[in-house]
Amino acid sequence: MEEVRIGVLVSGGGTNLQALMDACMEGEIHGRVVLVISNRDDAYALERAADMGIRGQFVSPRDYRGEDYDRELIRLLREEKVQLVVLAGYLRVLTPLFIDEYRDRIINIHPSLIPAFCGKGFHGERVHRAVLESGVKQTGATVHLVDEGTDTGPILLQETVSVLEDDTVESLQKRVLKLEHRILVKAVGEMCLELGNENIGGNHEASID
Amino acid sequence: MEEVRIGVLVSGGGTNLQALMDACMEGEIHGRVVLVISNRDDAYALERAADMGIRGQFVSPRDYRGEDYDRELIRLLREEKVQLVVLAGYLRVLTPLFIDEYRDRIINIHPSLIPAFCGKGFHGERVHRAVLESGVKQTGATVHLVDEGTDTGPILLQETVSVLEDDTVESLQKRVLKLEHRILVKAVGEMCLELGNENIGGNHEASID
Repeated sequence: MEEVRIGVLVSGGGTNLQALMDACMEGEIHGRVVLVISNRDDAYALERAADMGIRGQFVSPRDYRGEDYDRELIRLLREEKVQLVVLAGYLRVLTPLFIDEYRDRIINIHPSLIPAFCGKGFHGERVHRAVLESGVKQTGATVHLVDEGTDTGPILLQETVSVLEDDTVESLQKRVLKLEHRILVKAVGEMCLELGNENIGGNHEASID
Repeated sequence: MEEVRIGVLVSGGGTNLQALMDACMEGEIHGRVVLVISNRDDAYALERAADMGIRGQFVSPRDYRGEDYDRELIRLLREEKVQLVVLAGYLRVLTPLFIDEYRDRIINIHPSLIPAFCGKGFHGERVHRAVLESGVKQTGATVHLVDEGTDTGPILLQETVSVLEDDTVESLQKRVLKLEHRILVKAVGEMCLELGNENIGGNHEASID
């Protein structure tokens, strides 16, 4: 069984990317990150990729209009024969073109218990601030497949984190991030096993209009 | 320190009421259920109260208009010197009159992780059906203070239950109900300790306009 070729889209620091690359290297995931794409040229995730000897590519949103941006992403991903796409803090909405191309093969991690604290505007520390302001005692993280909606796709994994009395946005974010790394690695690992088994009967052929 | 006098409002079977009465009897809660009021005359909870030698009262919604229904509830609760009100499956919206009377002393239990699967229309097995249909992997129960909104008051306790692959509405409801009993008893116990301490300096005097 060949390793599944993974592409990761990022916008920021990329600790989830790091967790993925580490897990691949350590054999925890039967896959390999072969391409990291960022929509921001200052994303630290690009350096993380470089440090691991993985191709990191900045694609500037200024250079493309509408679907053309995602068309360029698809071109790059196909170039690297990517079979599975992981969004690791990618703060840009994917077009239907992209979602169609990688239908059921795009995984996202969200730092709350969907359907709570998700949807447009809820990302990064804003999620944890909203959690603290609401007074809920339980939060968590969710790994899900990406569909045309925002945080609406089928849930793969979801685990919880207790909110503590003296939690700050930072302390809560730190604990949830740890959980994110764990369940993202687990979900990507499971998905790679599935895709690996499918591929015994022939590789996934990507097509683009 | 005197035991806190608890009134319970119910509409149905009353397993949460049973858990409360048991915990009071066993000394787990420094309080005593002194009155159970139902808006339905066939609520099994009334029999549970009778079995424990506790006054159970059906108040017919047909006999009152607007706020007068809650005015009657308040009259009954004052008659029994109730200091803390617990909603244990009470499917009727409380008026501001009632909420003002027992401000910060009305506790509700909801069978999901608020803010998910709550608000109007979400009660009983409907909650669990929605949970299963949504595909979330974590649900739970929430104990909160009641304010003028539906399921919007400050959260006191919240714990989680994992949704299993082969869960049905019934199996999920059963596990969540167990959790409800546990956290409701815990929250009411804590509240009784607080109220008991306050009362050392004088009893809560209820007033009604």
